Amino acid sequence: MYPLLTNLLEGVMENQKAQSVGVIGLGSMGMGAANSCIRAGLDVYGIDLNTHALEVLKNKGAKAVSTNVLEFADKLDAVLILVVNANQVNAVLFDSGFAAALKPNTAIMVSATIAADDAKQIEAKLKEYQLTMLDAPVSGGAIKAEAGEMTIMASGSKEAFDKLEPVLEATASKVYNIGEEIGLGATVKIIHQLLAGVHIAAGAEAMALAARANIPLDLMYDVVTNAAGNSWMFENRMKHVVDGDYSPKSMVDIFVKDLNLVSDTAKDLQFPLPLSSTALNMFVSASNEGFGKEDDSAVIKIFKGIDLPGVEK
Amino acid sequence: MYPLLTNLLEGVMENQKAQSVGVIGLGSMGMGAANSCIRAGLDVYGIDLNTHALEVLKNKGAKAVSTNVLEFADKLDAVLILVVNANQVNAVLFDSGFAAALKPNTAIMVSATIAADDAKQIEAKLKEYQLTMLDAPVSGGAIKAEAGEMTIMASGSKEAFDKLEPVLEATASKVYNIGEEIGLGATVKIIHQLLAGVHIAAGAEAMALAARANIPLDLMYDVVTNAAGNSWMFENRMKHVVDGDYSPKSMVDIFVKDLNLVSDTAKDLQFPLPLSSTALNMFVSASNEGFGKEDDSAVIKIFKGIDLPGVEK
Repeated sequence: MYPLLTNLLEGVMENQKAQSVGVIGLGSMGMGAANSCIRAGLDVYGIDLNTHALEVLKNKGAKAVSTNVLEFADKLDAVLILVVNANQVNAVLFDSGFAAALKPNTAIMVSATIAADDAKQIEAKLKEYQLTMLDAPVSGGAIKAEAGEMTIMASGSKEAFDKLEPVLEATASKVYNIGEEIGLGATVKIIHQLLAGVHIAAGAEAMALAARANIPLDLMYDVVTNAAGNSWMFENRMKHVVDGDYSPKSMVDIFVKDLNLVSDTAKDLQFPLPLSSTALNMFVSASNEGFGKEDDSAVIKIFKGIDLPGVEK
Repeated sequence: MYPLLTNLLEGVMENQKAQSVGVIGLGSMGMGAANSCIRAGLDVYGIDLNTHALEVLKNKGAKAVSTNVLEFADKLDAVLILVVNANQVNAVLFDSGFAAALKPNTAIMVSATIAADDAKQIEAKLKEYQLTMLDAPVSGGAIKAEAGEMTIMASGSKEAFDKLEPVLEATASKVYNIGEEIGLGATVKIIHQLLAGVHIAAGAEAMALAARANIPLDLMYDVVTNAAGNSWMFENRMKHVVDGDYSPKSMVDIFVKDLNLVSDTAKDLQFPLPLSSTALNMFVSASNEGFGKEDDSAVIKIFKGIDLPGVEK
């Protein structure tokens, strides 16, 4: 009815969508997400302490890269943070002066796996700088990140979802809007990690028992992956056990961290978690035995009295 | 070089393959397997105590059906046993006089989930009657059984595999030959059940925590089934929790039995199983609370202080 007004509003809406995005943390997930944003035509600025990763991203077509988050702060409409934990999120946003240097209304997509309480505290601090937060953990692994096909479980305001829409579209095949409240995204991710962690530990337990029973591990792997006992994690991680390759794709210590987040969540909600508390103990034992920086499938090494491919007794 | 002899040998080999098969136990898996054998052109004889199941199979094209295993014993080249446990296998084969009534060299495919020791004892008794055993547990669920696409993990002699080839081809999309020794098939199935049982219990634990955190269960289900936390069992069984439908597809008490077989295997091999022992406790608790005959997803009901679809507090 009012075509001019409609056009004007659409123009305003369009302007609210991010065109230039800073990607902070260029590990396997962050690098994949940054490349996906470049392919989608966004202006990508890469930030990491690893200069090799910066060089790789520059060659892929990033506008600019730096080890210093302050360098492009005024150029960004949006920021995607893919670091390891809440301490790193706080360090990069606040200790560095980054939040203060960003333009007001810049949208901050926090995709690290963190506690719901940490997400809420980060949101409160971002508000002091008139910055909008999306609580947006991711899943899918490095291959899906590279393909722009991550799964994102997000909570936050409509404004945050709208502004980050180009980034979400570029990086994810599935985006779940869990609600407005910051912390819901974090909680859904933590419950997801409960399953991921238990499935890795259960895979290790089953393969260890197979080794003890003298069942060839490649055959056991083949049977399970063609039957109802399969899981995404079994198929992905127990291949490393069959191959005897414990070079870290994702480390044991990541699941020590994530299952501790599960445990903290259970404490806050006063809820018993018999299996995930047991799985946490298994990963902690593996870490204490010196396997913390190995692939998370190395949790199988806590089982003794068995022969495993590539593992010295 | 000796075409006549080769032809003769091929003829003998051909004669060794089963054409008429008795299927004992017409539950969801047995019925599907029997139908698959009929579709493949085999002469199928159905045996069960449930006369309704017999009628269904007769209408599908079975040669004959009966509640009495002795009725067609002399007509069979092969027997497929898909009952619940080792006691039932022993009852149907030996207490009934069935083994004594079968023709010598009839091949007996034992597809119940049983202990390796039970499999070996059954084989020894079958040998007294000159009967051949295939230790051949199955996986895949009712839908795959109906489609003739079960996964079969089998051990036994070449003669047993050869004679049962038509039955294996009719009922399975994957047949694993684990070795000659009876008991290997049983062990692989038990290790598979370790994973299946832990995955159901872990799914229940995660969905219970989601309920406690006020995450909508249908959304949690959707996220997990599109992410790395997924498992075959999560996707299949947690749908029942989302729908609040605990009518038994497979019962809680089946996993009490199967995880006890896992536990017995661990005892025999002197091996610790932190996760599956915990999962066993969860299923035993659910059974003791009165949920033993409900769908195995009802293990989630051991968690209190939450609202679940279709469950009265």
